[in-house]
Amino acid sequence: MTDPGSRDPGSRDPGYRDPGYRDLGFARVDTDRHARTGDPEVVYGAGKTTPEVVAVVEALRTASPDRPALVTRATPGTVAALTARWPDALVERGTVAVGPLPPPVGTVAVVTAGTSDEPVAAEAATTLRAHGVGVVRVTDVGVAGLHRVLDVRPVLRDADVVVVIAGMEGALPSVVGGLVGTPVVAVPTSVGYGASFSGLSALLGMLNSCAPGVVVCNIDNGFGAGVFASRVARDLAAARAGS
Amino acid sequence: MTDPGSRDPGSRDPGYRDPGYRDLGFARVDTDRHARTGDPEVVYGAGKTTPEVVAVVEALRTASPDRPALVTRATPGTVAALTARWPDALVERGTVAVGPLPPPVGTVAVVTAGTSDEPVAAEAATTLRAHGVGVVRVTDVGVAGLHRVLDVRPVLRDADVVVVIAGMEGALPSVVGGLVGTPVVAVPTSVGYGASFSGLSALLGMLNSCAPGVVVCNIDNGFGAGVFASRVARDLAAARAGS
Amino acid sequence: MTDPGSRDPGSRDPGYRDPGYRDLGFARVDTDRHARTGDPEVVYGAGKTTPEVVAVVEALRTASPDRPALVTRATPGTVAALTARWPDALVERGTVAVGPLPPPVGTVAVVTAGTSDEPVAAEAATTLRAHGVGVVRVTDVGVAGLHRVLDVRPVLRDADVVVVIAGMEGALPSVVGGLVGTPVVAVPTSVGYGASFSGLSALLGMLNSCAPGVVVCNIDNGFGAGVFASRVARDLAAARAGS
Amino acid sequence: MTDPGSRDPGSRDPGYRDPGYRDLGFARVDTDRHARTGDPEVVYGAGKTTPEVVAVVEALRTASPDRPALVTRATPGTVAALTARWPDALVERGTVAVGPLPPPVGTVAVVTAGTSDEPVAAEAATTLRAHGVGVVRVTDVGVAGLHRVLDVRPVLRDADVVVVIAGMEGALPSVVGGLVGTPVVAVPTSVGYGASFSGLSALLGMLNSCAPGVVVCNIDNGFGAGVFASRVARDLAAARAGS
Amino acid sequence: MTDPGSRDPGSRDPGYRDPGYRDLGFARVDTDRHARTGDPEVVYGAGKTTPEVVAVVEALRTASPDRPALVTRATPGTVAALTARWPDALVERGTVAVGPLPPPVGTVAVVTAGTSDEPVAAEAATTLRAHGVGVVRVTDVGVAGLHRVLDVRPVLRDADVVVVIAGMEGALPSVVGGLVGTPVVAVPTSVGYGASFSGLSALLGMLNSCAPGVVVCNIDNGFGAGVFASRVARDLAAARAGS
Amino acid sequence: MTDPGSRDPGSRDPGYRDPGYRDLGFARVDTDRHARTGDPEVVYGAGKTTPEVVAVVEALRTASPDRPALVTRATPGTVAALTARWPDALVERGTVAVGPLPPPVGTVAVVTAGTSDEPVAAEAATTLRAHGVGVVRVTDVGVAGLHRVLDVRPVLRDADVVVVIAGMEGALPSVVGGLVGTPVVAVPTSVGYGASFSGLSALLGMLNSCAPGVVVCNIDNGFGAGVFASRVARDLAAARAGS
Amino acid sequence: MTDPGSRDPGSRDPGYRDPGYRDLGFARVDTDRHARTGDPEVVYGAGKTTPEVVAVVEALRTASPDRPALVTRATPGTVAALTARWPDALVERGTVAVGPLPPPVGTVAVVTAGTSDEPVAAEAATTLRAHGVGVVRVTDVGVAGLHRVLDVRPVLRDADVVVVIAGMEGALPSVVGGLVGTPVVAVPTSVGYGASFSGLSALLGMLNSCAPGVVVCNIDNGFGAGVFASRVARDLAAARAGS
Amino acid sequence: MTDPGSRDPGSRDPGYRDPGYRDLGFARVDTDRHARTGDPEVVYGAGKTTPEVVAVVEALRTASPDRPALVTRATPGTVAALTARWPDALVERGTVAVGPLPPPVGTVAVVTAGTSDEPVAAEAATTLRAHGVGVVRVTDVGVAGLHRVLDVRPVLRDADVVVVIAGMEGALPSVVGGLVGTPVVAVPTSVGYGASFSGLSALLGMLNSCAPGVVVCNIDNGFGAGVFASRVARDLAAARAGS
Repeated sequence: MTDPGSRDPGSRDPGYRDPGYRDLGFARVDTDRHARTGDPEVVYGAGKTTPEVVAVVEALRTASPDRPALVTRATPGTVAALTARWPDALVERGTVAVGPLPPPVGTVAVVTAGTSDEPVAAEAATTLRAHGVGVVRVTDVGVAGLHRVLDVRPVLRDADVVVVIAGMEGALPSVVGGLVGTPVVAVPTSVGYGASFSGLSALLGMLNSCAPGVVVCNIDNGFGAGVFASRVARDLAAARAGS
Repeated sequence: MTDPGSRDPGSRDPGYRDPGYRDLGFARVDTDRHARTGDPEVVYGAGKTTPEVVAVVEALRTASPDRPALVTRATPGTVAALTARWPDALVERGTVAVGPLPPPVGTVAVVTAGTSDEPVAAEAATTLRAHGVGVVRVTDVGVAGLHRVLDVRPVLRDADVVVVIAGMEGALPSVVGGLVGTPVVAVPTSVGYGASFSGLSALLGMLNSCAPGVVVCNIDNGFGAGVFASRVARDLAAARAGS
Repeated sequence: MTDPGSRDPGSRDPGYRDPGYRDLGFARVDTDRHARTGDPEVVYGAGKTTPEVVAVVEALRTASPDRPALVTRATPGTVAALTARWPDALVERGTVAVGPLPPPVGTVAVVTAGTSDEPVAAEAATTLRAHGVGVVRVTDVGVAGLHRVLDVRPVLRDADVVVVIAGMEGALPSVVGGLVGTPVVAVPTSVGYGASFSGLSALLGMLNSCAPGVVVCNIDNGFGAGVFASRVARDLAAARAGS
Repeated sequence: MTDPGSRDPGSRDPGYRDPGYRDLGFARVDTDRHARTGDPEVVYGAGKTTPEVVAVVEALRTASPDRPALVTRATPGTVAALTARWPDALVERGTVAVGPLPPPVGTVAVVTAGTSDEPVAAEAATTLRAHGVGVVRVTDVGVAGLHRVLDVRPVLRDADVVVVIAGMEGALPSVVGGLVGTPVVAVPTSVGYGASFSGLSALLGMLNSCAPGVVVCNIDNGFGAGVFASRVARDLAAARAGS
Repeated sequence: MTDPGSRDPGSRDPGYRDPGYRDLGFARVDTDRHARTGDPEVVYGAGKTTPEVVAVVEALRTASPDRPALVTRATPGTVAALTARWPDALVERGTVAVGPLPPPVGTVAVVTAGTSDEPVAAEAATTLRAHGVGVVRVTDVGVAGLHRVLDVRPVLRDADVVVVIAGMEGALPSVVGGLVGTPVVAVPTSVGYGASFSGLSALLGMLNSCAPGVVVCNIDNGFGAGVFASRVARDLAAARAGS
Repeated sequence: MTDPGSRDPGSRDPGYRDPGYRDLGFARVDTDRHARTGDPEVVYGAGKTTPEVVAVVEALRTASPDRPALVTRATPGTVAALTARWPDALVERGTVAVGPLPPPVGTVAVVTAGTSDEPVAAEAATTLRAHGVGVVRVTDVGVAGLHRVLDVRPVLRDADVVVVIAGMEGALPSVVGGLVGTPVVAVPTSVGYGASFSGLSALLGMLNSCAPGVVVCNIDNGFGAGVFASRVARDLAAARAGS
Repeated sequence: MTDPGSRDPGSRDPGYRDPGYRDLGFARVDTDRHARTGDPEVVYGAGKTTPEVVAVVEALRTASPDRPALVTRATPGTVAALTARWPDALVERGTVAVGPLPPPVGTVAVVTAGTSDEPVAAEAATTLRAHGVGVVRVTDVGVAGLHRVLDVRPVLRDADVVVVIAGMEGALPSVVGGLVGTPVVAVPTSVGYGASFSGLSALLGMLNSCAPGVVVCNIDNGFGAGVFASRVARDLAAARAGS
Repeated sequence: MTDPGSRDPGSRDPGYRDPGYRDLGFARVDTDRHARTGDPEVVYGAGKTTPEVVAVVEALRTASPDRPALVTRATPGTVAALTARWPDALVERGTVAVGPLPPPVGTVAVVTAGTSDEPVAAEAATTLRAHGVGVVRVTDVGVAGLHRVLDVRPVLRDADVVVVIAGMEGALPSVVGGLVGTPVVAVPTSVGYGASFSGLSALLGMLNSCAPGVVVCNIDNGFGAGVFASRVARDLAAARAGS
């Protein structure tokens, strides 16, 4: 039934000037974001069908052929469709970067406490690469075996930013934050059981770190940590280049 | 086994006077509600079988042929059965209005922060239409791209009520509440992940809005926002009509 | 020590055009708010010294002599200072309206479940009066003695909005919302003990009301309910006046 | 592998005297409970296989042929198996009483706020019947339509105990507790959505009831309410009989 | 300032019929409660001044000289004023019963886990006595020394109701509920520290009791437990008396 | 796509000295742990595929043929694969010990409140056996039937450590802690429903035990309790042996 | 007023046999506890007046002159009164041991993460000494400066038990638990601010420790950790002595 | 009483080599921290007496005369004592930097949503200055009056880092994060009332920001945000200087 009582004012006259967004009816794509923040386009895969994701990426590839589009939280089916369509895509688990990656500048260390934290590390690392930042991975150096993290101290010290990813009690950022003066971005994960309460335990642990200067992202939010770290690394690279 | 130790006193003598409800044994339908509140009949689809929903709607259509019956939270199967039986029904996602819609009076703006908030907006909008109120939809104007909401300021200012629907940090109602003097009803959604805790984050954000005068509904409760807004819009229309 | 490493860019050149705010160094007063929303100026007394509050009110009286300034959460000392300076102020507990009150238009019913809820009712009522809206008070009609609220049904039905204020289990809005079709704004209070958790119990109860169309404010937020209700009543009065 | 390092001391010498329990190896059945408390045997169906439940009931029927065995939280398959084996069983949803029901003494009113609360009411009612207590059912009398509960006041007043079952904001026990002097046992249900948090909202509401003398059970715990109410009703019946 | 925009409709015409309450302006006293529930009048001392409490008690003594008035949560100053005015008052800590106590009928056992729970026990016991019920006190029988509660089993078994009051982990009601078939009303107290979270730990423990039939009151709510238990004991006494 | 912007520094030069761990690329196995703590190797089965678990166990069997490898939280499929490959493995539910068990020293009592707590007891018991500690099992002695736990007092008193496992209100550790002077390790389980909140109720109950000296593990963490108790029992055995 | 309706059955006939407790009217002192558990007598100072504490200690000194009485959570005034009466008492902050300390056996390491955790360490250490156990203190070795805890590894390894006390994120037990095989008892403290939520953050961190075998006490509960550790150390000493 | 059963191993032989800390008996000062992280020394004033703070600062001034010592959370008395002793100290509210400030390099914008957030801003700004970083302050630009924050966009864009400080719903970081590409560090404050739950509302809002790349500190933790931002700004300055 067509109901005259309901209308969408945004679509009545969309084109008379460039409003900084494109009104697709079901979405108002922020076409001004790259100009404001310098970040690439991102498509959240969660809650979207595979054809929807492919269509949006197709549009972004057309609009901005010279920079990548990033897809996060893609289902296996969506990953398969994306790599079938763009075989050169960079894929790590559910995160996909489509299009030419910028040459890497700077270095962000992505560090995990345990092997179960790897999906979040993959999201952070791929996000960094799509933003044009170099990544070094350090895996499974949780505090129950301290010699492992002590052994990689030089890597942590030389990075532009350290992204530390941990579940359970989330203690690793405190240890890293006390070992080196590099800015530390902590990401709690939902790894754990019982009273970990789906990541709450790690989140509170990181927010209350006794090592000053640790900042925190949402639970499992490797993407957010990647965006933040890439902005810092990008600025450092520009400063080094004298711009 | 028939057990003489259990009985239902309500069904022993149901008809001697009109008690303002009808005792169906498994339910006590409030037949007096329209007289008290002026609202149409509503059937919550959640937890009911498709035949049960169809039967109740059938009864309501017979009892009140001149106003619509509203079904919320209907499953896809129930939606299909309802539209098969009443092809003229107004359907948006899981919300269905069966029967003649009143001509729209007044205008309520239903605004979402992101595309994932649309199911809640659909519930609010269809509820408004079933109450006889006009709706204008504004989609995907979250605060991470402010120019989008700034651009629709006239729509917000001219509405009778603005229903603002947002998940994650739930910041959009504060921005809208500071831009215009229109009454703002905020609906938090369960959109988000990690520490959004299924909408708790947006709910707390809206309750603590720094823009005075923002009122809040339960998480994902587009129906409740629609009922409230329709009462305000209906009263305004009556005032304009001099009644 | 004067430290050249710290500066405030906002105060360097404040006056070259009207930015819609006044930069006082320690505050950026939103001088554009009345134009955008039609609401009077408000001073939150909490956390401010008595001289600070008096000074701000003095400034507001000078800037807008024809409309009142509203002070909320004033300490007894601040109330005394304000009434000494402006003997005609409207005072109820910690809420003070200074300056000429607009003639009352419309009617909002401010209803409490118990006598302990009165401070919140006072804040709501004085806020409404400062916004130029008429108020009718209904006191101590909690659901443990239902005949009290049933007795005031005509008052509730005839109001433009009903503001229902309750602590403990917060059940009164559900009862009121089922009795009349008037828009209901619920305010949970921190009245209660034990597992009321400072108003959480009443807040959750109101958000989950089985009466559709109940909207909710923050705990003890009589001011917010007053602002919202006054916007609705003001619009209704304008509609009745044909504007 | 048989491991000599692990043993169960309880099963070494089980029979030398009657310890008041039977050690089945995987369970230590409290055979003394009826003597201490007068209650019938109960089998929690949750987490048990259908053959396990049937076997335990079979044993209980043999041990105590003159009183019923009660099964709660039975799956549909378990219900089917029980009624196939004992066709005379009293069944309501997932609660089953097998064996001769005692003749009903006294009267407990089992009252629900909405139709979705019925499964909990069924558990309470069948529990009461298995304890030998008479039940009167009152269905769907939530506070959004007050005339429904006002209409059954005589039933509530004349009962030995009123069990009030409600989800969402859990307001019905406060209203009932204010209407009559009958002892009120409140059962919150997990009915609701959003910020009902699986029954937390109703639980807190009932604990904070403004009507004095309302006591509360765990969420969805119709069984517990039934046991408590049956003890009161049983004692009343004994007092009336002069024992 | 007298403000014509605010009025109280309830006080305009209070006396034309008996509405079942008395409108004192600041309170709407439920004068119909005794008729409905049989309970005595109660004055919550918390948040009231000493003169206010004395004045209300004075009024209640005049209105109902033949039954006591109960004051709960009285400050030491209020207790002193009440006993100065009515030297025969029954006082235990902050609970005061003024006026002739009914002769005790029945027996309720008030049991505490530790000496710190005594203030709550005092509130329960005095409430019971004001309702005309006999009380037997059992003190300091927590589960860390089980022989103490085992020793009073006859007292628990012979009571009409057992009110069990405990803080910390709240385990005592489970033990009592397994020892005897007497109805058990549990009251969690805010006794404890750290993760007891002001009584939440005891509250959850009691709600989840493994002994079926334990019902629960709000934290520290000795008054509520007393009202409930007195209703049961009163009904039992009436049944024994053949009425 | 091979991306030169990402690398793993840890795998570049793994072998030049023994770092106390083995870098497998996806994991950094702590090969130094046994030397530091004396504990056997453990594989968490949760989140690993069956082939992964089998491969890790295979490697551990090769590296340390003289002590067992412990697998926890194995799926049924993984259990089947492990027992097919190593038929002599000690299996209890999802916990598997592969390789020669050390001869049992000392005695740890593993006690459950109910039969639903058995999976956690199985995890604790198998962990103890893999650490070379003797186990005595006591099953289903919850506090609702006190005579059961009183009957096993000698077993509790003679053990080196008592591991007490309980869900619901978690009261059993308080009772055991008051009966004997043996160190008590409490494990809350997620057994319960409604306001047990997946074990939170039992966890808080145990943390707030009125019996001094009760220590607590994470919810359902039989493995952690087993590791702790085995360390104590091992030290006691060494002390008895004069080492 | 003497009220015949209330009585205390426990005090009617206290002396006919030794019930294992002494009924003081206001308390039921567990005189059997030392025989059951071997622990000294303890007086919780919180909530007791100075004369009450002194009187109880006086009684305990008389009853058991050969072992100490322990007072915890004493106010400064109570500490002063106790040391005036018994100048030889062992005092550390609010914990006082009165009477002859047993000669120390075994060694428990009491370790703090920061200087603010010292009050809890004092409670644990004095409790241990009153139980006859030797104590070694390690102070201020939090994980933000790892070299500090690495430096005391020998002390941790050689202790019978390590009690680790930490606030904020509570990470130190995980690090200690990974460094040595000594049993670790963790005590979260309420040290921290913001989202530490009075020790909840440290509590959750410790419960979720990635180092297996860490057990946890209530927040700030140095006394409980001391009791538990003393039981383990006492058993070890007995084993070493061949008893 | 001197008790031979307790000792502190750390103080027995403190000086044989430089362990990277100084053992003061009551504290283990991390003298290696500046070498590892480059940060100045910090003294937390909370929980320390004024003489203690002055003594520690005195020692730090002697040890490192060429860089400042930072004191946070100082009481007014401590602030007075510090400024009496070192008149040139930089003081803002409870944060004090004693000693020569490094010349400012780089620029961090410290932005507040409301005037009540200023104490946290003061802590952040003084921390930054003590670390040698330049600060620009932007005050009172909350989202309820958007034109204020839009007006300072150039300041935000040109900063090295933006520290955004907000209470209530914490929406400002989302708006800033969408306006500019500068790295955003968000600090929730405990400003708010009712359901703000002492900053929880703002904390959750910031963690769930819809603007990607926002990282978060603990509630009211201006110090932590200052340390983090100073590390980034310091690295940028070094990069610009070509080092």
